[in-house]
Amino acid sequence: MPLKLENRIPDIVIGRLPLYLRALNRLKQEGIEVTSSHELGQRLGISSAQIRKDLSHFGGFGKQGTGYQINFLITKLQSVLKINQRWQVAVVGAGNLGSAISHYRGFQDRGFEIAWLFDADESKIGQQVGRFTVQAISELKKVISENKIQIAMVAVPAEQAQEVADILVDAGIRAILNYAPINLTVPDHVMVQYIDPVVHMQHMTYYLDENA
Amino acid sequence: MPLKLENRIPDIVIGRLPLYLRALNRLKQEGIEVTSSHELGQRLGISSAQIRKDLSHFGGFGKQGTGYQINFLITKLQSVLKINQRWQVAVVGAGNLGSAISHYRGFQDRGFEIAWLFDADESKIGQQVGRFTVQAISELKKVISENKIQIAMVAVPAEQAQEVADILVDAGIRAILNYAPINLTVPDHVMVQYIDPVVHMQHMTYYLDENA
Repeated sequence: MPLKLENRIPDIVIGRLPLYLRALNRLKQEGIEVTSSHELGQRLGISSAQIRKDLSHFGGFGKQGTGYQINFLITKLQSVLKINQRWQVAVVGAGNLGSAISHYRGFQDRGFEIAWLFDADESKIGQQVGRFTVQAISELKKVISENKIQIAMVAVPAEQAQEVADILVDAGIRAILNYAPINLTVPDHVMVQYIDPVVHMQHMTYYLDENA
Repeated sequence: MPLKLENRIPDIVIGRLPLYLRALNRLKQEGIEVTSSHELGQRLGISSAQIRKDLSHFGGFGKQGTGYQINFLITKLQSVLKINQRWQVAVVGAGNLGSAISHYRGFQDRGFEIAWLFDADESKIGQQVGRFTVQAISELKKVISENKIQIAMVAVPAEQAQEVADILVDAGIRAILNYAPINLTVPDHVMVQYIDPVVHMQHMTYYLDENA
């Protein structure tokens, strides 16, 4: 994640806000209306002091002793994260993973809409994958530019991922979510985040008993 | 992530260790042999003080002023995270996502091996998906127990994920990586981590220009 020098809030704080938002939405689904930094912290494995400090960067959102109004805090965090609008997202790679992403229902109501599915493979172009017609990657630059798309997902095999990233950067994409298990090289004005299941599994093995 | 009360190291610290390990492996791939908390911090958007503090829980691994020997630190972190062994993993769900996971090459050399692929769908059982023969979920408990499997991935649609989690818990699974966009309810002795692309995208939208 390239840090903006002019941005005074540490990137690691920004990275925790979506986790707070997810936990708040779950509390809301459970019918809870007010929460505390303590309750949030217990759900997330983050100290209540850290949560209060993180939120204080944006004004705090709560009064001492009365907790956080969940609906209010959700709205504020959505605004901070700029997901009080819906972002259209381009997916590159119409294989198994791209198909799974295009069917994924976890984007609903969380600020994103998968809007295009691209592939380089001639045999896939024009085919229907869920509600998408697979488009040629040669059309990508035109589509991205005409629709002012800023976010793309890379769902191609590792050996094609850098080439796809280069095409996305050239087309003007500003944020890439990379599912391929390689490190992408991009200019400073482009952000990359990685879907890396191994990081999550290594977090859990710490707590497991060694195998016999 | 259920916190072990007897464990004195905060879970959020444990969660950063796989990120350190990934960054160290990338430095190593670049031919670098020694690094510093400053260099690691810059790559990860985490302060060097935080990194030194995190590593100090495990002995520090470096001498003041001389930096970290990358190979040494990698070996130590692998040992702390118990991935100096290979963990066999069961995947439930042989649809697009399960297929993508079973073809994913990012597990290699990082402590994990996908070893079984299960599905509840009669029409998929016995079919070949990559190097796997899809097995019936009715066989899951027996396979998990006989092979002492502790880790499973849930790659089924949202509405089936809780039922699959219940089956996994009953079979003795201790750690679940859930790709479905729902919160799983499991007993305290079972850990769940979530693959949630939205969390990563919301992290990036903070830095994007609002759409016109």
